[in-house]
Amino acid sequence: MEMESSKAGQVIRCRAAVAWEAGKPLVIEEVEVAPPQAMEVRIKILFTALCHTDVYFWEAKGQTPVFPRIFGHEAGGIVESVGDGVTDLKPGDHVLPVFTGECKECAHCKSEESNMCDLLRINTDRGVMIGDGQSRFSINGKPIYHFVGTSTFSEYTVVHVGCVAKINPAAPLDKVCVLSCGISTGLGAALNVAKPVKGSSVAVFGLGAVGLAAAEGARIAGASRIIGVDINPKRFNEAKQFGVSEFVNPKDYDKPVQEVIVEMTDGGVDRSIECTGNVDAMISAFECVHDGWGVAVLVGVAHKDAVFRTHPLNLLNERTLKGTFFGNYKPRTDLPAVVEKYMNKEIELEKFITHEVKFSEINKAFEFMLKGDSLRCIIHMDG
Amino acid sequence: MEMESSKAGQVIRCRAAVAWEAGKPLVIEEVEVAPPQAMEVRIKILFTALCHTDVYFWEAKGQTPVFPRIFGHEAGGIVESVGDGVTDLKPGDHVLPVFTGECKECAHCKSEESNMCDLLRINTDRGVMIGDGQSRFSINGKPIYHFVGTSTFSEYTVVHVGCVAKINPAAPLDKVCVLSCGISTGLGAALNVAKPVKGSSVAVFGLGAVGLAAAEGARIAGASRIIGVDINPKRFNEAKQFGVSEFVNPKDYDKPVQEVIVEMTDGGVDRSIECTGNVDAMISAFECVHDGWGVAVLVGVAHKDAVFRTHPLNLLNERTLKGTFFGNYKPRTDLPAVVEKYMNKEIELEKFITHEVKFSEINKAFEFMLKGDSLRCIIHMDG
Ligand SMILES: NC(=O)c1ccc[n+]([C@@H]2O[C@H](COP(=O)([O-])OP(=O)(O)OC[C@H]3O[C@@H](n4cnc5c(N)ncnc54)[C@H](O)[C@@H]3O)[C@@H](O)[C@H]2O)c1
Ligand SMILES: NC(=O)c1ccc[n+]([C@@H]2O[C@H](COP(=O)([O-])OP(=O)(O)OC[C@H]3O[C@@H](n4cnc5c(N)ncnc54)[C@H](O)[C@@H]3O)[C@@H](O)[C@H]2O)c1
Ligand SMILES: [Zn+2]
Ligand SMILES: [Zn+2]
Ligand SMILES: [Zn+2]
Ligand SMILES: [Zn+2]
Repeated sequence: MEMESSKAGQVIRCRAAVAWEAGKPLVIEEVEVAPPQAMEVRIKILFTALCHTDVYFWEAKGQTPVFPRIFGHEAGGIVESVGDGVTDLKPGDHVLPVFTGECKECAHCKSEESNMCDLLRINTDRGVMIGDGQSRFSINGKPIYHFVGTSTFSEYTVVHVGCVAKINPAAPLDKVCVLSCGISTGLGAALNVAKPVKGSSVAVFGLGAVGLAAAEGARIAGASRIIGVDINPKRFNEAKQFGVSEFVNPKDYDKPVQEVIVEMTDGGVDRSIECTGNVDAMISAFECVHDGWGVAVLVGVAHKDAVFRTHPLNLLNERTLKGTFFGNYKPRTDLPAVVEKYMNKEIELEKFITHEVKFSEINKAFEFMLKGDSLRCIIHMDG
Repeated sequence: MEMESSKAGQVIRCRAAVAWEAGKPLVIEEVEVAPPQAMEVRIKILFTALCHTDVYFWEAKGQTPVFPRIFGHEAGGIVESVGDGVTDLKPGDHVLPVFTGECKECAHCKSEESNMCDLLRINTDRGVMIGDGQSRFSINGKPIYHFVGTSTFSEYTVVHVGCVAKINPAAPLDKVCVLSCGISTGLGAALNVAKPVKGSSVAVFGLGAVGLAAAEGARIAGASRIIGVDINPKRFNEAKQFGVSEFVNPKDYDKPVQEVIVEMTDGGVDRSIECTGNVDAMISAFECVHDGWGVAVLVGVAHKDAVFRTHPLNLLNERTLKGTFFGNYKPRTDLPAVVEKYMNKEIELEKFITHEVKFSEINKAFEFMLKGDSLRCIIHMDG
């Protein structure tokens, strides 16, 4: 599968879906993609998926608007060329670009516990490469900005080498591309952080793609009781495929949902995983774990003014509360093994993929997500 | 050291310090101590110490007043006689009574992670034995109530077998008696819960006996930087003996102390341990740990209306928050080994003992504590 690029060192002209303005449909444009500079990689994207984070920053409600911009951060592709100093990757390598990186040099990268690289940690406001503060995308010489260092809604993109995971070339990129973000986040929240033991009970708050991946992780870990909590009852049917065995809709009760769960489980669940972004759900997820040993893991990204609050006694009674970012996976070190879990049939990705569209129809993927119909919609770059 | 009791099965008349009313000096009275019933042990107390918890419930401000009552829960003694069904203990055994128990049968006792026994968990409102709902203390037939199942301010007391740790008979009871409560709590918060690794940084909030024991635990674990935080600068001198290497008084700064510590430590401490009971200190202790790997442990008992609050992003950035009760030690299973640590000179208890008084002068111990002069005052029951 080695491949020599004839364009290495040159500008590539290709199609990209450009967001010219907040909330307006993307427009497929011909863009110029500059060659990768030092420590950068140019990647031919074959498949990309749409995630809520793209939609949030495209809507730019309460977010810093950075336009025109190329969104996209869940994808699979093949390295086209590499810049100076890149020794880990070469043209032809199969890769997943990731919105957060791993420099392998900073205190976080050197810590076994953290994946929050000082250099390459997600930055949603930055629209340029960190090396030179420039964009690699342009139309008629005018820059088009990057998004979270990945900008995968383009046939070619340029990414810092620290944000690229090299994976098994036998892995089907149209499936494993979803491991770039949400699915790994939920899976890792369960497997790396909550770590339920065999036979234990787990509550999952929010049954979107991230929550369902958390349920999948709990199932893989051997949890015997997985309680799904969502305010949207449409989510329940789908969730059965993901090992969720019981459902609770907080709207069906006139007491706090944590009390409902504590009663159902004779004192509380062993683990809970919050995947909603709603701070009340975070509080409920914490307060529904069993005293003595319960662990609650927060995954959702809350509103910037949200305040988590609880009585200190809930903590003193030996509950643990922690958060996770990208499921505590280090992107370069750990993602290849997650791909192998798919190859070994330990995890199923097909059930997350509810829709597929051609690149030329990328706006349909936004519609599916906004209607709440899709878990993941795969966008085929060749279409 | 075997000893046959001539009083087994009979009432013992002895001296006890009775709190007749909230906040009024204790009165040494002759009390009758009934024989131990099923699963109970009668203990001759040799040494007891005074802890803040005794003072809080004696003052009974905002606490349920239960009077007349015999306080005291840090002590060392010798088993005088045992009730039916007691097989683990016999007369002559050296023991520490503990305010929280271990039935060895409930889900908590069977869990490796919890020490919050369902049956014998601390209950500050109960003034009677759990077996029959009666008190074992009386004066002229009128009951005098128990406190947290221990009531060690009496020459003899009756305690549930699940609240009694059998220890090495060679251990000096006038020293190891302080391991019944506060010192083990702080030590365990560091060694069992925060678990700082060698060379790491630890902030300890509150430099009372519990906080200093937490500092001692951090030192034993090999922490290289122990930052003591207290609003009372008098505490700093003493704290130097406990491995505390730097001091921060929040009152010396016009910004939140968590910001001061984050600056001092280039991003935050690896671990923090809160031993104040003040909810603002709890929030600071959480927010001063490093993102990616920091762990904050809450030990202090907050006001019942206190609310812990923080921005969810502080959690998402991979910080962990947990609380501990009695340092996560299981009293019967784990305390004997803590006593051995003292015997092996791994921990020093002498430096916690700042005062000693005769039992007849027990009210002086209250005065020392209320003035903030003492860490621990040992009360000699034979005096
Ligand atoms: N920590 C990370 O690294 C990371 C990575 C990716 C996504 N996320 C976050 O994870 C969260 C979930 O992402 P997703 O793509 O699955 O979103 P989603 O919108 O598809 O799913 C969220 C679900 O939560 C439900 N929900 C909302 N409020 C609720 C409440 N109060 N109680 C119960 N259920 C409630 C919704 O009905 C929905 O089904 C988002 O906040 C996202 O920003 C975090
Ligand atoms: N979790 C448990 O099992 C357990 C067991 C025993 C004691 N405790 C609790 O531990 C706490 C400490 O006990 P102690 O006996 O050492 O108390 P103490 O009163 O001797 O010490 C507390 C120290 O905290 C300091 N302090 C108060 N507010 C502060 C603030 N905002 N910032 C910095 N320092 C502050 C005080 O000046 C004092 O030096 C108490 O809340 C007690 O109830 C808990
Ligand atoms: Zn790094
Ligand atoms: Zn995403
Ligand atoms: Zn028990
Ligand atoms: Zn105490």
